[in-house]
Amino acid sequence: MPKYIAIAAMTLDGKIARHKNHMSNWTSKEDKVFMHALLDKCDAIIVGNNTYKTAIKPLSKRNCIVLTKSIPHNVVSRFIGCYQKSDSLLFCNPNKANIKRLIRTLNYKTIAILGGAQTYSYCLKNNLLDELYLTIEPLVFGQGINLFAENQSLNKKFKLLPVKKLNPQGSLLLHYKKI
Amino acid sequence: MPKYIAIAAMTLDGKIARHKNHMSNWTSKEDKVFMHALLDKCDAIIVGNNTYKTAIKPLSKRNCIVLTKSIPHNVVSRFIGCYQKSDSLLFCNPNKANIKRLIRTLNYKTIAILGGAQTYSYCLKNNLLDELYLTIEPLVFGQGINLFAENQSLNKKFKLLPVKKLNPQGSLLLHYKKI
Repeated sequence: MPKYIAIAAMTLDGKIARHKNHMSNWTSKEDKVFMHALLDKCDAIIVGNNTYKTAIKPLSKRNCIVLTKSIPHNVVSRFIGCYQKSDSLLFCNPNKANIKRLIRTLNYKTIAILGGAQTYSYCLKNNLLDELYLTIEPLVFGQGINLFAENQSLNKKFKLLPVKKLNPQGSLLLHYKKI
Repeated sequence: MPKYIAIAAMTLDGKIARHKNHMSNWTSKEDKVFMHALLDKCDAIIVGNNTYKTAIKPLSKRNCIVLTKSIPHNVVSRFIGCYQKSDSLLFCNPNKANIKRLIRTLNYKTIAILGGAQTYSYCLKNNLLDELYLTIEPLVFGQGINLFAENQSLNKKFKLLPVKKLNPQGSLLLHYKKI
């Protein structure tokens, strides 16, 4: 079975960004080092279109599935609801494509989910989130984008695996498994 | 100088409750034990009116300052903007009362801030939050009340002090100091 691993960084008040175009350049360098090392171990990345646009260049080196509702209607693809831009880049409409089947067909074993909020929510609701690496940065934004899109009440339980303090100011890496 | 200590429990997606009347009965028993032990060491509690109403009985044993904008206009009190209901219970309008001066007058040295979101925000913005004990329960609510009320963008920095795992499922107690 493929393993789906969400990777997120948030402030201590639960914000993953100040607004939807806010780059992830506010996180600690230790978190970035951890994230890149983990991505190197993954076969592919699932990412939302807004998040993809903020990181096109670094993501171009990896196998990417970009979730977006704006796939051209006239696209002919070997995957339903998807538009294959290159060998490593697929745009998929999550309302039309069967992401689980797609992942199995592509033979990806470990998949990183990089957000944003709508993508984390979609994956959590559709059993595409087995583990979560959550870095909590010692900051407060007050306003911003929450970890999960707030369009549905959920009741999901996790178990905490080891915790790692990443630096002296206290960026904290939590590892959760969905139960 | 009095020390202001915020105490909060939230889900891993940053929610302190599902809605404004949601009781705090969803948190782990280990978190409650910790909170009560800490409250025993504090001289008084600052709490918002909604949170106060969900816990009138347990709070009746402690010195309480309840923040509310609905103080009767004709109240005569020895504290401006406040209505003293009993020796241990003060209702204060945060827009009129000088909370810092009030705390000094009452000679309280250690003050616990118990929420909810508006009260945490008010205290953070007004330099009435020196430390934060934040318990992260291994749950996701998806929708709900965020730790801080989302009426203002903030940029506050904290330093993480020791971390404690409270139970096997992984309720995690984080201790932050404002810097």
